[in-house]
Amino acid sequence: MDFKVMLQQANVAPLALSARFGVEREGQRVDSTGSLAKSPHPTTFGNRNYHPYIQTDFAETQLELITPVTNSPAELMQWLAAIHDVAYRSLPEQEALWPLSMPPALPENECEIKLAELDAFEDVLYRRYLAREYGRRKQMVSGIHFNFEFGADLMQALHGQEPTLPFQDFQTEVYMKVARNYLRYHWLITYLYGAAPISEANYFMDQPASVEPLRSIRNSKYGYRNHEDVKVSYGSLEQYLADIAKLVETGKLSEDKEYYAPLRLRGGKRVQDLKQSGIRYIELRDIDIQPFERYGFSAKQAEFLQVFLLLMLWLPEEETPEWVAQGAGQNDAVALEHPYAKTAYQAEGEWLLAEMQQMMEELHLPLVSDFLSWSQACLQDPTLTVAAQLLAKAEASSQKAVAIQLAEEYRHLAWEKPYQLAGFTDMELSTQILLFDAIQKGVKGTILDQADQFLQLDFAGRREYVKNANMTSKDSYVVPLMMANKTVTKKVLQQAGFPVPAGGEYDDIASALRAFPHYQNRAIVVKPKSTNYGLGISIFKEPTTLANYEQALNIAFSEDSAVLVEEFLPGTEYRFFVLDGQVKGIMLRVPANVVGDGQHSVRELVAQKNQDPLRGTHHRSPLELIQLGPIEELMLAEQGYTFDSVVPTGVTVYLRENSNVSTGGDSIDMTDEIPQDYQAAAAAAVNALGAKISGIDLIIPDLTVPAKTPGAYGIIEANFNPAMHMHVYPYAGKSRRLTMAVLKYLFPEIE
Amino acid sequence: MDFKVMLQQANVAPLALSARFGVEREGQRVDSTGSLAKSPHPTTFGNRNYHPYIQTDFAETQLELITPVTNSPAELMQWLAAIHDVAYRSLPEQEALWPLSMPPALPENECEIKLAELDAFEDVLYRRYLAREYGRRKQMVSGIHFNFEFGADLMQALHGQEPTLPFQDFQTEVYMKVARNYLRYHWLITYLYGAAPISEANYFMDQPASVEPLRSIRNSKYGYRNHEDVKVSYGSLEQYLADIAKLVETGKLSEDKEYYAPLRLRGGKRVQDLKQSGIRYIELRDIDIQPFERYGFSAKQAEFLQVFLLLMLWLPEEETPEWVAQGAGQNDAVALEHPYAKTAYQAEGEWLLAEMQQMMEELHLPLVSDFLSWSQACLQDPTLTVAAQLLAKAEASSQKAVAIQLAEEYRHLAWEKPYQLAGFTDMELSTQILLFDAIQKGVKGTILDQADQFLQLDFAGRREYVKNANMTSKDSYVVPLMMANKTVTKKVLQQAGFPVPAGGEYDDIASALRAFPHYQNRAIVVKPKSTNYGLGISIFKEPTTLANYEQALNIAFSEDSAVLVEEFLPGTEYRFFVLDGQVKGIMLRVPANVVGDGQHSVRELVAQKNQDPLRGTHHRSPLELIQLGPIEELMLAEQGYTFDSVVPTGVTVYLRENSNVSTGGDSIDMTDEIPQDYQAAAAAAVNALGAKISGIDLIIPDLTVPAKTPGAYGIIEANFNPAMHMHVYPYAGKSRRLTMAVLKYLFPEIE
Repeated sequence: MDFKVMLQQANVAPLALSARFGVEREGQRVDSTGSLAKSPHPTTFGNRNYHPYIQTDFAETQLELITPVTNSPAELMQWLAAIHDVAYRSLPEQEALWPLSMPPALPENECEIKLAELDAFEDVLYRRYLAREYGRRKQMVSGIHFNFEFGADLMQALHGQEPTLPFQDFQTEVYMKVARNYLRYHWLITYLYGAAPISEANYFMDQPASVEPLRSIRNSKYGYRNHEDVKVSYGSLEQYLADIAKLVETGKLSEDKEYYAPLRLRGGKRVQDLKQSGIRYIELRDIDIQPFERYGFSAKQAEFLQVFLLLMLWLPEEETPEWVAQGAGQNDAVALEHPYAKTAYQAEGEWLLAEMQQMMEELHLPLVSDFLSWSQACLQDPTLTVAAQLLAKAEASSQKAVAIQLAEEYRHLAWEKPYQLAGFTDMELSTQILLFDAIQKGVKGTILDQADQFLQLDFAGRREYVKNANMTSKDSYVVPLMMANKTVTKKVLQQAGFPVPAGGEYDDIASALRAFPHYQNRAIVVKPKSTNYGLGISIFKEPTTLANYEQALNIAFSEDSAVLVEEFLPGTEYRFFVLDGQVKGIMLRVPANVVGDGQHSVRELVAQKNQDPLRGTHHRSPLELIQLGPIEELMLAEQGYTFDSVVPTGVTVYLRENSNVSTGGDSIDMTDEIPQDYQAAAAAAVNALGAKISGIDLIIPDLTVPAKTPGAYGIIEANFNPAMHMHVYPYAGKSRRLTMAVLKYLFPEIE
Repeated sequence: MDFKVMLQQANVAPLALSARFGVEREGQRVDSTGSLAKSPHPTTFGNRNYHPYIQTDFAETQLELITPVTNSPAELMQWLAAIHDVAYRSLPEQEALWPLSMPPALPENECEIKLAELDAFEDVLYRRYLAREYGRRKQMVSGIHFNFEFGADLMQALHGQEPTLPFQDFQTEVYMKVARNYLRYHWLITYLYGAAPISEANYFMDQPASVEPLRSIRNSKYGYRNHEDVKVSYGSLEQYLADIAKLVETGKLSEDKEYYAPLRLRGGKRVQDLKQSGIRYIELRDIDIQPFERYGFSAKQAEFLQVFLLLMLWLPEEETPEWVAQGAGQNDAVALEHPYAKTAYQAEGEWLLAEMQQMMEELHLPLVSDFLSWSQACLQDPTLTVAAQLLAKAEASSQKAVAIQLAEEYRHLAWEKPYQLAGFTDMELSTQILLFDAIQKGVKGTILDQADQFLQLDFAGRREYVKNANMTSKDSYVVPLMMANKTVTKKVLQQAGFPVPAGGEYDDIASALRAFPHYQNRAIVVKPKSTNYGLGISIFKEPTTLANYEQALNIAFSEDSAVLVEEFLPGTEYRFFVLDGQVKGIMLRVPANVVGDGQHSVRELVAQKNQDPLRGTHHRSPLELIQLGPIEELMLAEQGYTFDSVVPTGVTVYLRENSNVSTGGDSIDMTDEIPQDYQAAAAAAVNALGAKISGIDLIIPDLTVPAKTPGAYGIIEANFNPAMHMHVYPYAGKSRRLTMAVLKYLFPEIE
């Protein structure tokens, strides 16, 4: 089969970049001095026995971060970034991830390297075996595993060229060719991306030290690899499996999975499952951690590897054992070269890149990054390679110092905006935080629609869907519809005996005016039926005139086709977040304000308050920046100030009348301050609505009055998708991790 | 207490018209010849033992239609109209309601008047007792019972003037005064609204006949009333209750409720409960059925009665037994007057209306109807009264002929648009039909928000909420959100193994253009992610060019910020309505079309097809009128026609490409034509989405191919609030009463 010709077909070429990607990134936990962490694997990660994202590899300090299968390099990096964010922010204070493949200084006594404390005894036994057979030090080396699968549409289009072969066999042939050619040419990857030039203390305690620096100690004979007598053929899948089976049979390998190669053929759960499943994807295991990439890997590298693997299918090959052996030899040699030296295989490298360029042109591959020119430049100038770059920095100080600095930098970045989840910062904040918690606890998350905040969550064998972080299967369809309608909400609450403001709904000015007699003797609120951010609301705290009433109606009707007129309830408004019958958080929202210090102007005080990293714009921060616009100016003027007024010490100046966080208001957690009887009343009201998750707003004039006293409180409205981020990251008071509460409500099995 | 002064207070007067209203309307079922119906009470009404709206009174033929408690005359009439619509359309063909208080011709043998066949033996016994004691004929007289309650805010404001008296006692005093004055002055009601001038055959078999015509046989001594020796005092509630108790004790009444009066004091369930409850409202029982009103009663009359009852509180009174006795005497006399004659109490009538006018002016009552001038005119000219109007018509033919004609007219009106529910025609059609079914089966419906299609339903001790006729508690919150998102729907269906069109979602033109390679070799559909009525959709049934693709993207992006590109599935689209795992209806929608006859032009054929009473506008009919606009003109031109073309016999000409019913398409029920395996597939797909109520659209190229065959069908989308009216009233094929299916799903207890 001539795969090159097949790839060139008009119905195949456009699909050439269709693929799926996954990455596993190993990394040692270190303290701020760059020493291996003493702490056990954090319990906040839930149970590592089934954790889909965060595991431990060989050692207790060796995290393994695993992305799900993704459909593009961009999506791959989203997940890799998010999982790193979770990992960093779940580690004990000052711990970070060592940014190099080569481990930090190891203990002199090998036994002080603690094996990962796994539950399954067979996993523990296997690690003990590896420690015994290869030594613990080599197992501490970390890397990137890159999983790659050709897209189903590409594979089907290819198979359409050779339909007589069963699809699964065809697919296996594709991957076998890619594997052979990869093993033949992967030295180029080592050349470009090798990043393990120098070892740290005690790595070479058990073997003669290498002459450093090298391109990649990890990819050289000094890295972890099988013993010399372990040889496996790549001539065919059958031969490959038979060879491995024989090695196990003869005791040269303890089990199939001990066979270690730069590229692993993947299908079923175990190696021998490949017999039934055929090869479904491949795993590259020879990628060093990229120290200058925040997540040890990059989208550009993923694109390069994808095109390189496509090239492996495109290029001719020889199906001889020598072919693979030659590749292994060249890779060994390249790994041992000095990072600043030109490679011995320069010519072959140039040929490979020229072939790559030609293939890209012939297939019209629409790629975004510049990996080709970068690779070409690296071949000409070895100092541009990753190993050389790391070496150069290490020479200026030490590799350890460089690594500590990078680790610290990445840790700092992860904590810069702790409410965000890297990779998903364009999603709503509550969804970011919920997804953070899901990743942390090992709840498998799938983004069904990123713009629509639609998640699929899998855990403990069950599947749940979540939209906007708390719209779930727990509530029934009609209940949020009820809460979306203020009139219906009030009627239902009133029928159930809860105090709601008296009033009426009107569809036109005329009928609202006719009802004036009902309102003329009391304090009232006139508001659009569907309010957003307080627009169109008029409050009359004293009985008002017909003329004022009419004006208020006009304002309200300009916002909505239906208007509510309600008695005004004096008091303080509190938001009760109720979940499954329990109050999980109570929030007081205070209008945008600054407190004077007798020295600074309002303008300066606002600028100062806006420094808070919790403040931002467009609802992508827990708090919004306080604005200095016309509304704020007017509000200040009413208090006798301008933006340039210096406010006396201790005096609070309000810049807004409305208390919305969205207009710069402060959120203050009051959960521990609100008496139990009010909490019970809020929970009961939500229950009366039939809701499981709701944010219900109570007006309470005096917290010392028992809730059961008539007039003690009134219910303003109930919200079916209440904001959670403001509870998690309040301006003042205790943080309430409502996202975790939602997650545990959906999956009580979470530890 | 001077109630007049109290009513004049500034905080009371504006509330004077605050009140609650209810009506019970009795009526004899008759056949088209005006004879008492022979049929039993229709079983379609469910169980009359607890039916809140439709009961039987004394006789099996005597319907009693009961409105719920309402807050305005307008709302009262909505319900009265709706219940009448349900009653009419549930009766056997040709049966109607006799529009008069006096019954139609009665059988010569009294025993042929069948007592209502009630389940409760005590109810049967009571009717037997009444038949024995008063004769069956008098019990056949029907009337209107008008329940009236002063508004809670009005009553509280009044009580505020006299706060020392306990509220309940105060309220009882109010109603006792109203009762005494009503009994004193209610002759005016008999004068104005009396409507029983003539009896039909055999009414007077058991008693000496009156000299007809009278103003109201029903309100005269010839109507049903207690025996002479039954006297009850209205001096106080205690005295009233004591008198009734004594009458029962001495055997002059069989039980409390046998006491019959023009006005009944109401509080608890039984008369003697008033001791505990006090009087909470009053029931006027002396209103004759208004023959010229479609529902036997009118909003204007409700307004008049309301103001009249307010006047009874306003006017002075005497708390003597003579006061009430004088009123009874005057009413007896007025009832016996000739309808054309002036009343003997003309002067008192003029005084009453003058007082009423003055009260209305002083209290600034904002009333809409002209009852005052009408009443004044009637006092001057007796021929304007209802009794006189009826008599005049009867003289021209016969009262029976007039009654038959009116009955037929009202029956015809009820059937004119059988898909509508009178009183609620501004609601969505599906909600109207659902409410119809609820009223029919005795499910208590409350309109929580009319414009928002929000109903509360109570039945069998349980409460359910329904929005837009099928958004209920049965579905979970997140499922409709899933169905609202086409991409999410497809992903979930695909994961579950259902065939959906391959494709992608794009947020900008650039990324959609980059994906062109995936689509260039196949038939595709380009559409906005959220489509409405087929806007912005381009279909390429053959592979298309990049230029066309880009144009289609521009069109789609002009409708939405996200666009879907999908493979085009050829075949016919069917809508499967699935409820609780079962397919309840399958609809084929055909684009707007006419079939030629070789004689008429397209324009004429459309006009002819638009005659169908099922066609209307604005989704308030099951089908929409076919339009003759530019889109239709273009579509015709593509087929070589104009609006004036005469189409050959049998040739179908399409006026639209899209099949939406909203643009004049035809709905054709196919439930019995679609093979079971496709029905099972549709139900399984809805189940995979976790939905209980959904309309799911399948494309099926060939119904003879088994559904399990790959490519046999594809799922386009699932709808979370699928239209039901088009299934209930299809253009062709069998009607599927989906609304009833929803109702029975919510309340399986429905018989």
